[in-house]
Amino acid sequence: MRISELAATTGVALATLKYYLREGLLMPGTATARTRAEYDETHVERVRLVRALVESGGLGIAGVRAVLEALEAPPASPHDFLGAAHHALPPPVEPAVPSEEVLGWLEDLGWGSCADDPLVGSLTRAVADARAAGVPLSDASVKAYAEAARRLAAVDVEIAVAAPTPEAAVHVVVVGTVMLDPVVATLRRLAQEVESARVLGS
Amino acid sequence: MRISELAATTGVALATLKYYLREGLLMPGTATARTRAEYDETHVERVRLVRALVESGGLGIAGVRAVLEALEAPPASPHDFLGAAHHALPPPVEPAVPSEEVLGWLEDLGWGSCADDPLVGSLTRAVADARAAGVPLSDASVKAYAEAARRLAAVDVEIAVAAPTPEAAVHVVVVGTVMLDPVVATLRRLAQEVESARVLGS
Repeated sequence: MRISELAATTGVALATLKYYLREGLLMPGTATARTRAEYDETHVERVRLVRALVESGGLGIAGVRAVLEALEAPPASPHDFLGAAHHALPPPVEPAVPSEEVLGWLEDLGWGSCADDPLVGSLTRAVADARAAGVPLSDASVKAYAEAARRLAAVDVEIAVAAPTPEAAVHVVVVGTVMLDPVVATLRRLAQEVESARVLGS
Repeated sequence: MRISELAATTGVALATLKYYLREGLLMPGTATARTRAEYDETHVERVRLVRALVESGGLGIAGVRAVLEALEAPPASPHDFLGAAHHALPPPVEPAVPSEEVLGWLEDLGWGSCADDPLVGSLTRAVADARAAGVPLSDASVKAYAEAARRLAAVDVEIAVAAPTPEAAVHVVVVGTVMLDPVVATLRRLAQEVESARVLGS
């Protein structure tokens, strides 16, 4: 198909597709004339992926590029999938220097193997920022959040393990890490309403 | 203190503070001369809150304004806290038309009381976008995420209920809803590594 048809099929403006081409987020089509190229189903899929990462995943161009690179350089073993995905992706928050308090929580949770992970710095920053903004976060609250996060992660891993090929597993892990944050955030808000009705009565 | 001291105390650039004043995110100081105003501890707190919402919470100016408005118009009953917070805040994802599938999940989960909530539209969109990006999401997976989200929400409600005054509870709910998403996202990624090591072996 021509680029105008790619635009019609995906519902993405022509100017945006040209921008993706310039930024290397969309592979060039097969040249059929000096100013004409042919696009196929792989381009449709790529455009949909980029849109989803930008619109629902909230990523910027650099973040999208990181995801695409992670998809093209799959890790050696299935066990490396999640770590590789995390290191390729932009962290949820810019890391700070890991605090003793956060390292202590990980130890208590039995997550000590993560101590060197840059995400520990992100967690330190996210907790400090929440407290600075006036949200009290006790030891017990953070650990309760961590136990709930563990259940989310169990579903994440289950979905990845069920993928039919290693490439599919990488895709699910990398893209799922970004795309399921909004699903979780929305479910959390709905659950807050359910929970508050239960606790506070109606 | 003068505005230059407010900048020094909060570590926020003078130009940014002036921008916040123009946008109404920071209350004006008390005028002490034609071109001079005096700021106090309430301004320091406000600047810190705005910074946290922008940097860690990832909100834009409109989102910050919505949070500040929600803080200034507390709801009538404690039970309204969470709903009011959600309606004031920008949704995690722009809502789509709620799908029958998503409404069915809420029914099965016993969350039927949420059926009219605009967040159901956001959930519909977030699930559709994740699937369009190649992340398979079965009935069972979404319900397992929902159960985990319910545990997150139980902690959220516990923290809000423990707040010493209704004003503090509103603050915790509104600000915590935004500021704890990055805490949860980071914990989820760390937990994925712990979970994958357990499931896939090392």
